[in-house]
Order: sequence, then C-alpha cells, then structure tokens
Amino acid sequence: MAVDPRRVIADLRELDEKTGGPGGARRVCWTDEWRAARELLRKRLRKIDGVQIEEDEAGNLWARLGGRRPETVALGSHLDSVPNGGWLDGALGVMAAAEVLRDAASFGPERSVVLVDFADEEGARFGRSLLGSSAVAGTLDPGALEGLKDADGMDIRTVLAEHDVDVDAAPRAERMREGLVAYLELHIEQGPVLDSEDLPAAAVTGTAGVERLRMRFAGQAAHAGTTPMDLRSDAGLAAAATALAVEDVARRHGGVGTCGTVRLEPGVITAVPGVAELGIDLRHTQAESLAAMLEIVRAAAGAAAVSRRCKVSEEHIWRIEPIEFDTRLVAAAKEAAGSDRALASGALHDAAEMARHVPVAMVFAPSTGGISHAREEDTPDDALETAIDVYARLALRVISGEVV
Amino acid sequence: MAVDPRRVIADLRELDEKTGGPGGARRVCWTDEWRAARELLRKRLRKIDGVQIEEDEAGNLWARLGGRRPETVALGSHLDSVPNGGWLDGALGVMAAAEVLRDAASFGPERSVVLVDFADEEGARFGRSLLGSSAVAGTLDPGALEGLKDADGMDIRTVLAEHDVDVDAAPRAERMREGLVAYLELHIEQGPVLDSEDLPAAAVTGTAGVERLRMRFAGQAAHAGTTPMDLRSDAGLAAAATALAVEDVARRHGGVGTCGTVRLEPGVITAVPGVAELGIDLRHTQAESLAAMLEIVRAAAGAAAVSRRCKVSEEHIWRIEPIEFDTRLVAAAKEAAGSDRALASGALHDAAEMARHVPVAMVFAPSTGGISHAREEDTPDDALETAIDVYARLALRVISGEVV
Repeated sequence: MAVDPRRVIADLRELDEKTGGPGGARRVCWTDEWRAARELLRKRLRKIDGVQIEEDEAGNLWARLGGRRPETVALGSHLDSVPNGGWLDGALGVMAAAEVLRDAASFGPERSVVLVDFADEEGARFGRSLLGSSAVAGTLDPGALEGLKDADGMDIRTVLAEHDVDVDAAPRAERMREGLVAYLELHIEQGPVLDSEDLPAAAVTGTAGVERLRMRFAGQAAHAGTTPMDLRSDAGLAAAATALAVEDVARRHGGVGTCGTVRLEPGVITAVPGVAELGIDLRHTQAESLAAMLEIVRAAAGAAAVSRRCKVSEEHIWRIEPIEFDTRLVAAAKEAAGSDRALASGALHDAAEMARHVPVAMVFAPSTGGISHAREEDTPDDALETAIDVYARLALRVISGEVV
Repeated sequence: MAVDPRRVIADLRELDEKTGGPGGARRVCWTDEWRAARELLRKRLRKIDGVQIEEDEAGNLWARLGGRRPETVALGSHLDSVPNGGWLDGALGVMAAAEVLRDAASFGPERSVVLVDFADEEGARFGRSLLGSSAVAGTLDPGALEGLKDADGMDIRTVLAEHDVDVDAAPRAERMREGLVAYLELHIEQGPVLDSEDLPAAAVTGTAGVERLRMRFAGQAAHAGTTPMDLRSDAGLAAAATALAVEDVARRHGGVGTCGTVRLEPGVITAVPGVAELGIDLRHTQAESLAAMLEIVRAAAGAAAVSRRCKVSEEHIWRIEPIEFDTRLVAAAKEAAGSDRALASGALHDAAEMARHVPVAMVFAPSTGGISHAREEDTPDDALETAIDVYARLALRVISGEVV
C-alpha cells in the first residue's frame, strides 16, 4: 500500500507550525488562521491529479476524485479548532483523508472519492457546533443562528458573509450528500480509554445520546449561625445530593453523568443557600438507558428537594439521541484495526450528523492522558502511524466497493 | 414599674422613619445615616436628667448616670445596621437601654448605669465586625485594620478619621470597662427558634464558637462525554460529598454546619470539575464538640478526596471559641422571662466581646420567620413589648445590686 502515515504526520506538523504555536492551535473557524489552514490543505490537494475543489453553501470544502462508478465515498473531518486547542483534533482526520485521496488518485479508484473539511465543527466562536455537517445533514435551521454573536459582539451573519457564506443559503449544502454511499472519519478519542488500554486504534460504534439540563432548587436563605439544622431549607444540600445521584446513576447504567456547574444564592460563607442551580450532562449510547438515567436523576432531584424542604424546577437545555454507526462499516473498521475492541464516542463528531443519512464509521486514535481541547493534546507517533494505517485500509476497502 | 415598652417601640418606629424606608434600614456605620440615628439617640438621652454623654476612642457612644455606688451596670447594643437591613437589629437593644436609663434616672439608682451604643457591630462597610466592642474588650489590633477598604475603595483609616476615630488610638477605649460589674443586652434572635416555639422572649446562655474554613479539592478537569466514570478525578463530587458530611456532623453533634459557597473549575457544563472550593462554617456552643465537628469534617473531606482520586488542602479562615455568659445573670434572665427555656446564640454579638471581662447576659426577642439582615425583618408588637419588659426587669434587678 502506498499510503504513508509519516507523510500525514509531517503535514500535521507543518499545519501546527503555521497555525499553532506555544499557546496551542489557533484554527478557530471563520478567522484568518482557519483560512491559512485551509490554504495549506488546498496546496496539498492541488498536487493530486484529477481532483476538483469546491466550497459549498455552508463553507465546507470538498475535493472530489472521480472513480469508475458514480457512487461516492466521503472521507473527512474538520480543520477548525478551539482557541488554544490541540494539533490533532480534527486536523488528523482531514490530513489522513488527503493522503488516502492521493493514494487513490495514483491507481484510479473503483468508486468516486471525496474529501470533506467540515466548517465550524467546534462552534468555538458562535457556540453552534457541527455547523457545516448539520447543513449537509439537513438539520441546520438558519433561524436558530439569528442573533448569535462572538465575544467581541460581531454577528454570525456578518462574519460568515466575509467567508462567502450566506446563512440563509447554508441549508442548500444538503445537495452535497448526493451519491454518497459511505462517510469515514479518523479522529483522536479525546478521552482516556485507548491510552489506558494501550491500544493504538479502535473502531467507533456510534455517538452517545445527550440530555443536558439545569436543576434549580429553591429553599430559604438563612443565617448560618442562628438557623438550627431542623429548620433549614438548604438548596445547596439538595444540589449536592443530586450531584451524587448523577454519579451513581451513571455508574449503575454504564453511561456518564457530570455536574460541571453549580451556582448558590446568596453565595456567602455565613448564609444557608436559598437557591442552588446545578448543571447536569447525561450521556449513554442506548436511548432506553439514557431515558432511564434522566428519569432517575429527576426522581433523585425531587427526593433531594423534598428532604431539604425545597422546590425543584428543571430547565432542559439540549438533547440529542444516540446515533449508531453502520454495522457493516463498523465491522470492517474492527477488521482493519485487527481487534474486536470498539468504543462508543462520548463526544459528538461530524460523523454523527452524516450518520442520519449515510452509512458511517469512525476510527479513533488514542489521546495521551485523555487530554484534548488543550495545547497539551498529543498522541505518540507510532500510535498515530498505526491509526492512520488502519483508517486508510478501511477507506481503501470501501472505495474498492468491497464493503457497503 | 415605670418602664414603658410602647415608648421604646415608638422610638424604634421614629428611627425607622428617619433612617430606613421601603428599602430597609440604612444605618451603615461611618455614614451620614448612622450619624442621623446617633443624633436621634442623643436627643432622646439629653431629655434624661443627670446623664453625661461621651464618645470613646473607638467611636462608641456612652451615656452615664451616676448611682449611689461607683460600680456600674452597662446596658447596650448597636445602632448601626447592614445595608437594606431590618428596623430592630441592634436598635432594639439601644432604645430599650435608653428607656431603662430614663426610668433609673427617675428614681435614682443604687448602682451607676451606662448606656453604650457600640460602633460598627456589623462590619458592613469594611468587613470587620464587632469593631467598637472589641476595642473595649482589648481584642482590637489596629494593624489588622491596615489597608481595609470599602466597596468604593475608601480606606478605613480615612473614613474613621472623618468620624473623629483615630484607628491607632481606638484600643484606648479599653478604659471604658473600668467599674463595670455587668453588661446586659436585648437583641432580636435573628433565627427561627423563638418564633417557631411561640415564645416572646428568652434568656441567652452564650454565643457559639465558630470554625470557618475553605476546602480545596484538586482533581483533573476532563471532557464530560469522553471520560468514563472510572477514570475520573471529579473534584466537584468530592466537594458535594463533603457538604453532605458537614450537614450530618452538625446534626449528630447538635451544632450547625453550613456550606454557603462553592466554586468549580473550569465551571463548564460539559467538563468534569478539576477543582472545587467549598466554604464551610461550623458552630457549636461547646468547645469540645466544635473541635470534634472540625476533625470529623476534615476526615470526611480527606475520605471524599481519596474516593474521587483528588487532593485536598485546607485554608482556615477564622475561628472564635464558644463564649458562656455569666450563670448568675443568665439565671436572673430566665427568672425575668418566667421560663427556663434559654438558647445559645449562633450569631455573634457585642455581648460576646464584653463577656471576656465582664459578667454578661442577653435577652432575645423573636424574629418573625427567623428573618434578619433584610427589610422584611420584624417582630410582632406584643412580643416586642414582652421582651422589652423582661429585659427591663432584669436590668433593674442588677442595677439595684440584687444580682452579681
């Protein structure tokens, strides 16, 4: 096989030199650095004979190589990063796809191949993740972007227009799905599992569903010295008990549950909290288990409120259902990895949007210490080489028409 | 008896009209409103024959009435309030003392009597509570006031000088203790106990000791989606478990324990907290029990940290030992109240400072709903009248030389 993982790593290091640095990656979408990253990618793609490059209505970049058949295999990820991000998040999958495309061009593929660099996977500037891939998947509502501003008060509509993206026209990117028979993505795990199991690569079975909510407990603020324990309505304790219930339900159901935020009122060391707001994020790969976790957390919050004589109300923030990848492609990914070990992704990826309409699989490379979204993000070269190799062999099998 | 509780209530209402309003009391120490409250008190005191008024080096106001004996009974509290405070906190005790002084002047007391209006009991502007009474008790260190500023950046030294108080000279107020044989204070409870037991007044046995600290848990921030429960070091859960342990230890030891503040890092709903800081306030009337509570909370924090693979460190913020009032005076206060029901104060009072050197007792009036430090603070007139009457009878017995 002529795919050379070391060439991919060299491309990633060049990208890091030009758009990263001591503070980490600076490829935030809709910025000059992101454009510079894209330009580097274009330069790489222009060296491949027979590739046609275009940007769609949502700002996604597509590089198409015609095959003997019109049916098309999409390979991709995203070049954009969070501020002070890592060198591999997203970029690994795009540069690996470029190398597979180069290799396919050298022998003339059976199926057509298209590389896609999705725009704004991170949502780092305007808070809307998966922007480009959701446009392709048909789940982007331009109305929901109305009024979104960045930290400097710049409007999303104005900024995207500077990058030739008309927000109202973005859903037309759906046309890019035409002819796609598979979408394959290589990504770092952004978690500690492969690193702790010393695995250089693994197939991904799907993405977990998410229930994100805020529980508000209302009790009675009171003097910490003069209010006997029996006469308190301590909202902070109701929140603390609920946080422990979230941990317990996640462990018992094999999902994850996190309380990443809490706010107390009045928030004074000498006052019993009268109000507590607890942010809760629940994830599970099985819809029924996720629904059960949510119900148990709601019941636990209710019981915690009653036992501390508080009222509880719930603000539901966001949800997405679990998404399962294509069983045939996942099986092929396991074969390519030479291991039955596969894991579900707790983080979302462009692949989750694509999986709504197209058979999808992903391959994960390990993240050292599970660290991502930070300049310390890293993966040892030998693991990267193996993961790129696994991904390339999977992609070439699908491109050959052997799978799906 | 010629003490008229209704006159005290009328004085309090006049004070409230002049220095309160819809937003609550505005008698914050070292402000014009506080001066206006003092001027109202002076006007009231000047009507009493034979009373000499002076302000000491710490800004406390003393109104002295000579008796047949040089030994002196001090009656007092504080006129200063928190911002948007209640009409009774502090003012009740000062106005009741003025009425007793008026009555004593009418018959010529056995012992000398002195009313004291302590300066800055609340510490609302510069964060140093019990300023005036600690100067009299000899526990005020001018060095510890160095650099204290109010919310507008005004220095404590500059502001107090505008009220003729030289911070360095304030400890000379210790001289005012000379000749004191008792200090008696009437105050609202600022807690819910008397209200819930439907008692109009009760003797106070002392003030609880306080241990105030901050526990810092350091784990590892991580992605809420990609980090399995078994591989987390969740500092927020360690803090939550510790908060519940604080509640449990307070209940089991008959004290109070409060976690009024918590701060999570990074404080993002999709991130496992890597750092959690929990503010803890423990109180008990028995020194041994308070020490035991502190040890158990420390052990619980250590165990919670270990079970979530975090490190814990402690910042000790403040402590004061439990202070017991004079048993003879407390017994007399119970007799005056006509009830053996007495309670310890969970809040601090000027009486706690005075009790270091002088026999002390306090009488509590109920606080409706336990609310204080708020404009809703209130006590029904009939309960106020009873509590003022109880206090006056106690004071007159001590002034007569019958007790201590």
